[in-house]
Amino acid sequence: MIHADILIVHGDVFTMAGNGSGYIGDGAVAITGNRIVETGTSESLSARYMTSRLIDATDRAVLPGLIDAHVHGGIALLRGIAQDSASWLSSIQPFINAMSLDALQAGAMLTAIEGLRAGTTCFCDNSPGIAHSLPFYEKAGVRVAASPLTSDAMPATAAGTPPEFSDEMRGFALLEVHDLIGRWNGAADGRINVQLGPRAADFCSERLLCELRDLSVKHGLRIHMHLAQDTREVEQVYWRYGVRPVELLHRLGLLDERLIAAHLICCTPEEVELAARSGVSMAFCPSSLLLCDGILPPADVFMDAGGLVALGTDETGSNNGANLFSEMKAACLGLKMKRSDASYMPTWRALRMATADGARAIGLDHEIGTLEAGKKADIILVDLNRPSLVPVMRRPVRNIVPNLVLSARGDEVCLSIIDGKIVYENGRIMRFDERASMEFIRETADEICRCANREAAETRTAPYAMTQNGEY
Amino acid sequence: MIHADILIVHGDVFTMAGNGSGYIGDGAVAITGNRIVETGTSESLSARYMTSRLIDATDRAVLPGLIDAHVHGGIALLRGIAQDSASWLSSIQPFINAMSLDALQAGAMLTAIEGLRAGTTCFCDNSPGIAHSLPFYEKAGVRVAASPLTSDAMPATAAGTPPEFSDEMRGFALLEVHDLIGRWNGAADGRINVQLGPRAADFCSERLLCELRDLSVKHGLRIHMHLAQDTREVEQVYWRYGVRPVELLHRLGLLDERLIAAHLICCTPEEVELAARSGVSMAFCPSSLLLCDGILPPADVFMDAGGLVALGTDETGSNNGANLFSEMKAACLGLKMKRSDASYMPTWRALRMATADGARAIGLDHEIGTLEAGKKADIILVDLNRPSLVPVMRRPVRNIVPNLVLSARGDEVCLSIIDGKIVYENGRIMRFDERASMEFIRETADEICRCANREAAETRTAPYAMTQNGEY
Repeated sequence: MIHADILIVHGDVFTMAGNGSGYIGDGAVAITGNRIVETGTSESLSARYMTSRLIDATDRAVLPGLIDAHVHGGIALLRGIAQDSASWLSSIQPFINAMSLDALQAGAMLTAIEGLRAGTTCFCDNSPGIAHSLPFYEKAGVRVAASPLTSDAMPATAAGTPPEFSDEMRGFALLEVHDLIGRWNGAADGRINVQLGPRAADFCSERLLCELRDLSVKHGLRIHMHLAQDTREVEQVYWRYGVRPVELLHRLGLLDERLIAAHLICCTPEEVELAARSGVSMAFCPSSLLLCDGILPPADVFMDAGGLVALGTDETGSNNGANLFSEMKAACLGLKMKRSDASYMPTWRALRMATADGARAIGLDHEIGTLEAGKKADIILVDLNRPSLVPVMRRPVRNIVPNLVLSARGDEVCLSIIDGKIVYENGRIMRFDERASMEFIRETADEICRCANREAAETRTAPYAMTQNGEY
Repeated sequence: MIHADILIVHGDVFTMAGNGSGYIGDGAVAITGNRIVETGTSESLSARYMTSRLIDATDRAVLPGLIDAHVHGGIALLRGIAQDSASWLSSIQPFINAMSLDALQAGAMLTAIEGLRAGTTCFCDNSPGIAHSLPFYEKAGVRVAASPLTSDAMPATAAGTPPEFSDEMRGFALLEVHDLIGRWNGAADGRINVQLGPRAADFCSERLLCELRDLSVKHGLRIHMHLAQDTREVEQVYWRYGVRPVELLHRLGLLDERLIAAHLICCTPEEVELAARSGVSMAFCPSSLLLCDGILPPADVFMDAGGLVALGTDETGSNNGANLFSEMKAACLGLKMKRSDASYMPTWRALRMATADGARAIGLDHEIGTLEAGKKADIILVDLNRPSLVPVMRRPVRNIVPNLVLSARGDEVCLSIIDGKIVYENGRIMRFDERASMEFIRETADEICRCANREAAETRTAPYAMTQNGEY
């Protein structure tokens, strides 16, 4: 008999290996250390493995942990204060201005708590001051691909004026990047990785973009970046360089498989196709962009051109939460609506976006995304006996995947394993004090409200007006 | 001191009275028997009421119970077996054919369980064999507006051929309706009401429609009906009468404030506007129609023409659940996307659709939909300390409504009162044995699978093929 640290048996196992869901009925997964050593039928694995921790997964879906490919954990505390507004950015600005480093860390905590409670195991956090949040993420036991929001743009002196770039800011930005790579890339047994995070082409000088490109090549790091995310970016890039953002990145040698591009909402179809064909991956955040701009990002065009798409929640201040189950449903609803075709964007593709395809898109598919021997053990169990997932049918139609994507609320997740360790079980987060974190989150949010009060009132943001009018 | 059976204090109370959210900070609600006797501040009500059941609602949102204005509870067991298909109807047909009366009752149970666990207190159930489910609903303590799916159409003899109508079937249908009105309208202290439910203009003869219209006038009952729900309906009505469905109902005197019309997806904008201006209400089921047909129903056109819109989940076999929180979010995402405007369909309007406006739309606003003195006590409490709703901000922007609509998963509902009685509290359904019901649901679903197996395989439905291909 072989010893496994954890042996999961009798589950409806979806390995997500291959091109579909990789279903194994009455399936089993054996884990030793931080890796999966074997996946197969319960009969086969039970006969050959002994274990100190046997998990009976009867009526549980066993899945790769979900991957949030684009999330600004830092600003999670700004939930619900800039919705329903024709200008999300100007509505949220008074609150952004009121944020401290404590608020960024509290945001990471809230993202981890909400995400863990809904099956997310890997967070691609693209936040300012990310280094400040990484000690918490390390302790929390979650997997992180961390990128700083890098910029060398000075604050604009007048509205609509493109910012000037500062050599001093570029220096500081690169110092932060080097420091992050040195201290954190591959930390916590490889559970924490670093990506480069130029904020967008209008927030970075050409020189900064090129230096980040060279760093990316040198260290083998992905670049996680907003691309064509708003008209301001398109206009400023055109004003500065005489080309649009996708063309600029193409010229600078950034448009390749090292790039994970978020949003792409201000692209022509040809630009979307060029990005996809150049090997760029797309971080698709449907709810967030619909709530901020009323626009569904062109994931369909990107996929149809052969591009890889990962799913992201973007940020709790827009989305307005960190729940990938809700995001998988939004992806299906939005794309079916855009294409006027109920068979477009089938649920199993949404599940792949949040697992196997997401892992490929962010360059972590050698480690996570499927349940296969040799992969890191990032695994979630979902209780199929919960009312939102009942009845379970296995033949003639297996309804588990559609129900996970379209019916699950997130609270059906009953166990999460990250890097071989149980981090969440039956409502309890195991590796940090959730109650203390929530207290810190509440206190920090109160402080933000105190600081933002005057500016929100003076600028009379749309949500402020709705509060005053008694609509909120 | 005045005695109240239940006194709720210290809540964030959203009465939904007036035109907004009717917010009362540190609010209170006093209940005696099955009615609300007063709503106001905690200070004011605590000074004047004594009670045997004091509920501390600190950090709880206190809301009218949610109203599901269009739901086919009977077919809830068919969750997730006909998704991702270009023809939902042909994919679900083998399973519909396999359903028994037991399955219809089990479906009502599942709808009640899932709905209660997500804040729904009133179910407008439009199902075949509805009389079979009403004893359960009565026992479960939920509010129901029940309509039978009435039809006098014979099974079509050939595909595409309009059905013939049968006098005998019309007779049976009307007998069912009369029986339902006599036995159930106003039953359980008015908690159960009857609506008339002609299935659609292609499933009912002109004579049946007119008889139902006359019954509606005679008994003061609403007519709850699909209208322009698919191209088949439009084509058959045109073939039969030379007009389209909206015009037909107009001619027959059915297009008025007694009519609750579901879907309207095959309408011209002018037809939608005519219906709205005629006083018709719309049952808006965004997820369901997007998942079945890839089409968002024209609720924006209907509202812009002054029509009243209620929210419905339609059915677990399409939607694919009975969760109005998820549906409020889908309504916002879908309409913001359709209008390319993030300020369109603000969250507070979605909350009104599921409460006050929904109640008006279905003609029950004299009883439910707001928290006001004299209304029936249908009230839910939502725990704002749950990670998905944190942080709570009250000024300068009150973020509770956006978070309820866009972030809540449904499991944050911690207490539901229907007709003055607590029916759900902290995860426990109080009035029936949930475990036994779930067992019945599972057994009945297994039986459906056994019966549908052969036909699904022979017709090779799209979800059957996806199961065989390993995509599901």
